Amino acid sequence: MTLSPDIKTFLDSGSQYHPGVSVDCVVFGFHERQLKVLLLEFKKTNVFALPGGFVFKEESTDEAATRILWERTGVKNIYLEQFYTFGEQNRGNWNVHKETMSSHGFELENEHWILQRFISVGYYALLDFSKFEPAPDIFSDVGDWYDIHQIPPLILDHNRIVEKALDTLRLMLDHKLVGFNLLSETFTMNELQSLYETILDKKLLRANFQRKMLSMEILERVEKKFSGKAHKPPYVYRIKKVQ
Amino acid sequence: MTLSPDIKTFLDSGSQYHPGVSVDCVVFGFHERQLKVLLLEFKKTNVFALPGGFVFKEESTDEAATRILWERTGVKNIYLEQFYTFGEQNRGNWNVHKETMSSHGFELENEHWILQRFISVGYYALLDFSKFEPAPDIFSDVGDWYDIHQIPPLILDHNRIVEKALDTLRLMLDHKLVGFNLLSETFTMNELQSLYETILDKKLLRANFQRKMLSMEILERVEKKFSGKAHKPPYVYRIKKVQ
Repeated sequence: MTLSPDIKTFLDSGSQYHPGVSVDCVVFGFHERQLKVLLLEFKKTNVFALPGGFVFKEESTDEAATRILWERTGVKNIYLEQFYTFGEQNRGNWNVHKETMSSHGFELENEHWILQRFISVGYYALLDFSKFEPAPDIFSDVGDWYDIHQIPPLILDHNRIVEKALDTLRLMLDHKLVGFNLLSETFTMNELQSLYETILDKKLLRANFQRKMLSMEILERVEKKFSGKAHKPPYVYRIKKVQ
Repeated sequence: MTLSPDIKTFLDSGSQYHPGVSVDCVVFGFHERQLKVLLLEFKKTNVFALPGGFVFKEESTDEAATRILWERTGVKNIYLEQFYTFGEQNRGNWNVHKETMSSHGFELENEHWILQRFISVGYYALLDFSKFEPAPDIFSDVGDWYDIHQIPPLILDHNRIVEKALDTLRLMLDHKLVGFNLLSETFTMNELQSLYETILDKKLLRANFQRKMLSMEILERVEKKFSGKAHKPPYVYRIKKVQ
């Protein structure tokens, strides 16, 4: 399933990549009121990292993010949004890659291209993690979901990248439909509020929330069907279709 | 005043820069209800560009943005915020640099480092343009302010970079104090609304605007002083001090 070549081919292919730039992906999973992040553990090392990689000379950073996420986790057909570029001179200890490659039997020289400084472009995505089973790639034992409150120490500045992605996700909730692709086509106001509360990690006032959502004018109420039940069923909404 | 070396030294210094990454700055100027952008015109060419440049190996992209803006325009001591990274494979015709350098008497070979693909990190800032007189650098005749509605065709994807910066500025107005550093320490609600209307390029309803600003809980009303005039003076506000 993976597109990755073997590790030796990868380590020898530095000249095929755009120099100096990498991509890291923060994939948030949402299911039953929990927010999780997809992480990879390098084989035999207890070293954790975001799914990341390098940009081919013949592709955009957007294309690289989509390809890298597929190669490293098997996740595809999801929309990744760029959120920030990590351009510090010292983003952590690049020699961590010596350790991970050594565990595969490859001893890297100090001048090896993957040990140089890379400026990394961060992308994030949201998906319903019940629909996805991470698949291991050539570097990792297994990808797995980690609760946002229990992220282990990650390589380089990857913990900061997760924090920044979460900040962005929360900021964007007010402006974009980022959250709605996690819901079914129709949903109740309760279901929508639960999604927001999970991402924001706080309780919201029901009346305020409902007023705010309706004032965005992106929801339409689905005509009620006769339910046959005695108590009043909740209204059901869907996203308005763009004309 | 400029930190730039001469052009030949610059053209020969590719190995000092982090490979593959550039920085471009969108500086918005606000004054008397007008929103403008700072652009440079390359000497003798009628070619326009954003102030941009390259990242030294020993500096962060943030540091590079501050340095580059100073070197190329004389603007300093302003806060530049990163907003997007432009990572398309084809961001326009890199050979435009052949033209601009040729006008200085330098004929570049096709393999010259500044003609390669660069991924560019965008930064934006806001300042009161009445306080700033752009100074020309070694490449440009003059920097000048251009009305946001009358931006000339720019090199590469710089017109798109301006558009994206404006989108970000508008999005951020709701969340950050980006606009307030353009006002004096105290201001009336009318002055604040005028700033927002200029950036958003639309009229706002006074009552709604006032309610929204006050609900953010970042403003405090300054105690009124006896004005001595017959009519009622407007309330004056300032940003709350963080405890």
